[in-house]
Amino acid sequence: MSDTDPINRQILLVSRPAGEATADNFRLVKTPLPPLASGQVRVRNHYLSLDPYMRGRMNDSKSYAAPQPLGEVMIGGTVGEVVESQNPKFKPGDKVLGMFGWQEYGTSDGSGLKIVDTAHVPISAYLGAVGMPGVTGWYGLNRIIEPKAGETVVVSAASGAVGSVVGQLAKVAGCRVVGIAGGADKCSYVVESLGFDACVDYKAGNLYQDLKAAAPNGIDGYFENVGGPVLDAVLPQMNAFGRIAVCGMIARYDGAPVPLQHPELILTQRLKVQGFIVNEQPDVWPQALRQLGELVAQKKLHFRESIAQGIENAPEAFLGLLKGRNFGKQLVRLV
Amino acid sequence: MSDTDPINRQILLVSRPAGEATADNFRLVKTPLPPLASGQVRVRNHYLSLDPYMRGRMNDSKSYAAPQPLGEVMIGGTVGEVVESQNPKFKPGDKVLGMFGWQEYGTSDGSGLKIVDTAHVPISAYLGAVGMPGVTGWYGLNRIIEPKAGETVVVSAASGAVGSVVGQLAKVAGCRVVGIAGGADKCSYVVESLGFDACVDYKAGNLYQDLKAAAPNGIDGYFENVGGPVLDAVLPQMNAFGRIAVCGMIARYDGAPVPLQHPELILTQRLKVQGFIVNEQPDVWPQALRQLGELVAQKKLHFRESIAQGIENAPEAFLGLLKGRNFGKQLVRLV
Repeated sequence: MSDTDPINRQILLVSRPAGEATADNFRLVKTPLPPLASGQVRVRNHYLSLDPYMRGRMNDSKSYAAPQPLGEVMIGGTVGEVVESQNPKFKPGDKVLGMFGWQEYGTSDGSGLKIVDTAHVPISAYLGAVGMPGVTGWYGLNRIIEPKAGETVVVSAASGAVGSVVGQLAKVAGCRVVGIAGGADKCSYVVESLGFDACVDYKAGNLYQDLKAAAPNGIDGYFENVGGPVLDAVLPQMNAFGRIAVCGMIARYDGAPVPLQHPELILTQRLKVQGFIVNEQPDVWPQALRQLGELVAQKKLHFRESIAQGIENAPEAFLGLLKGRNFGKQLVRLV
Repeated sequence: MSDTDPINRQILLVSRPAGEATADNFRLVKTPLPPLASGQVRVRNHYLSLDPYMRGRMNDSKSYAAPQPLGEVMIGGTVGEVVESQNPKFKPGDKVLGMFGWQEYGTSDGSGLKIVDTAHVPISAYLGAVGMPGVTGWYGLNRIIEPKAGETVVVSAASGAVGSVVGQLAKVAGCRVVGIAGGADKCSYVVESLGFDACVDYKAGNLYQDLKAAAPNGIDGYFENVGGPVLDAVLPQMNAFGRIAVCGMIARYDGAPVPLQHPELILTQRLKVQGFIVNEQPDVWPQALRQLGELVAQKKLHFRESIAQGIENAPEAFLGLLKGRNFGKQLVRLV
C-alpha cells in the first residue's frame, strides 16, 4: 500500500462488556481499500446510525440476533454516496442506504443496498424517521396498538427516534398523545415541536401522578421503549382492552433483574401486551416507508438528530446514547 | 306463610373477606317462595356452579365486574328444571341453564334462561365443559393462542374445568399438550383420562426442569390459570412468537404482590400476552358451545366433577375450591 491508497477507517468490536459497555470494547483501525472486483460497488458513507439494539449484539448471550463477532467491524445502518461502481445497477453519485457498519467506506456486490431519493427527504432521515426507527414506530402503533380516534396513547422515550414517530402518527390518527421523556428540555420539545398534547418528565420524580394528570381518561395504547419503573407507573392506568407494544425493555439494572410489579393487571384490565422486532415484519416496510416519506416531505413529520462528527467519535456517542444523553436520533457524520 | 308453603334455602354474602374468604362471610337463610306472577317461571335448581371468579366479586374493590352486594344471594350459574310456569316459553319439565345463584329455587321472567338438551349431554355439563368454563378454554385457545399442529401447548390447572378443555381441544388441534397440576393423582388423571402427552406436578418442587423435560421443543402456547411462580417457570421456556392467554392470575400471596420476574422476555421472545374474560366475548359462544357439545356427546371431551351435596355445604366447597382441593369442576348438587 502506498501513501495515496485510499484508507478506510473502521471501528471494530474487540471485547465484550462485563457489565456496562465501555470505550475499551472498541478499536479504531485504518485499512487500505482494495480495488473493486467486477460486480462490486463502493460507497462513501455519510452517516452512521447508532441504535440501542447494538448493545445487545455486543453480548455473547443467546438472543433473537446473532452476536456481533469480535474483531469485526461493528454492525450498523449507513447512508452514503456511490463513489465507484463495477455494478450496472449503481452509478457514482447514487445515494444509497445500506448496512455497512461503523466505517467510512462500504464495499458490496449491491445486495442489500437501496437507492434513496434525497430530493424531498434529507439523506439522514433514511436512518431515522424514514428508516428502521420510523418503521418500528409505525408497526408498533398501527399493528399492535391499532389506535382509534379519541383514544389516549402514551409513548416512552418520546423525544427519541422511535418515540417521536409514534406520537406524531398517533396525533394523525386523532388520539390524545402523551409522551414520557427525561428532563424539561426534552418534554418541551415533545410538546412544542412534535405536537404531543402533553409530556411527562420521569426525572421529576412523580411519574404516576403526573401521568394521571396528563392522561385523565386513562391509557388505551402504550408504546414501551424502556420498561422498569416506567411500565409499573403506566400499567395501573391502562383502560380495559388496552394494548401495549413492547419495543424496548430494560432487563437488568445494576446487575439485578427488573420485575414487573403487577402482572395481574394484564388480566383484570384484559390487556394485550406484545413484543416485536421490526426486522421480522418485512411485509409492512414498503407501506410504512411510503407513508413516513410522504409525511417528512410534507413537513408533517418532524424529527431531531444528535450528530457526532467523525468515525473516531462513534464509541463515545454510542455510550452516550445508552445513557440517554442523545436528544433525538443519534447519528455519526462521516464526511 | 304456612308450614306447607315452599321454602327456598339461599346463601347470602353477609360480609367481605379481610384477607382470606371464610365461612363467616356467608349465611344460610330460608325464604318462603311467593306465588308466581304472570310471565314468570320457577326453576328447581339441580346444580350450582362454583367458580374462582366469585372470590373477586366478594371484594368491594374496583374490578372488571361489579361487587356482589352484601345481604343478597351469592351469584352463580345454575342448571335445573322448570317446576311451574306462567310464561309461554317454558313448561314444567324443561331443563334450563340460568344464573340463579346460591339457592334452591330460582324465579325469573325468563330472560337469561336457556333451555338445554339433556338427551345427549348430562345437565351438569352445561356448567362445565359445555358452559362458561368450556367456552373460556375454547376462547383462550382458539382466539389468543391459535395453536398450529405440531406446536407445544402448556396449560396450568390442567385437571380443572377450564384447563381440561384447553388441553383436550389442543390435542384435537394436533399439538403436543403438557399440563401443570398439583399432585400425582391429578397428573395421572390429566395424562390417562384426558389424554395429555404429559403433566408436570408443580408440588414436586422442580417445576422449571420438569417442564423442560416435558416440553423439550419449548412452548408455543400457554394457557395461564394461576400466575406467580408457575408463570415465572414457563416464560423463559416460551419459543419466539409464543402466545399466552391469561385467564387467571394470582395478584397477592399472603398479602404481598406477586411480581413477574422477567417481563423483558416478552420482548426478547416477541410474545403476545393477552388477558380476557369470556363473558365479554359473546360472539364466540354459539360456535364454541356447538363444538363443545358435540365433543361431549361423542365422548371425545372428558371432564370430571367434584360434587358437594346440599346448598348448606356450598360455602365450604367454595373455600376448598379456592385452595385447590377440588378435582375437576366444582358443583353443588341441590336436589
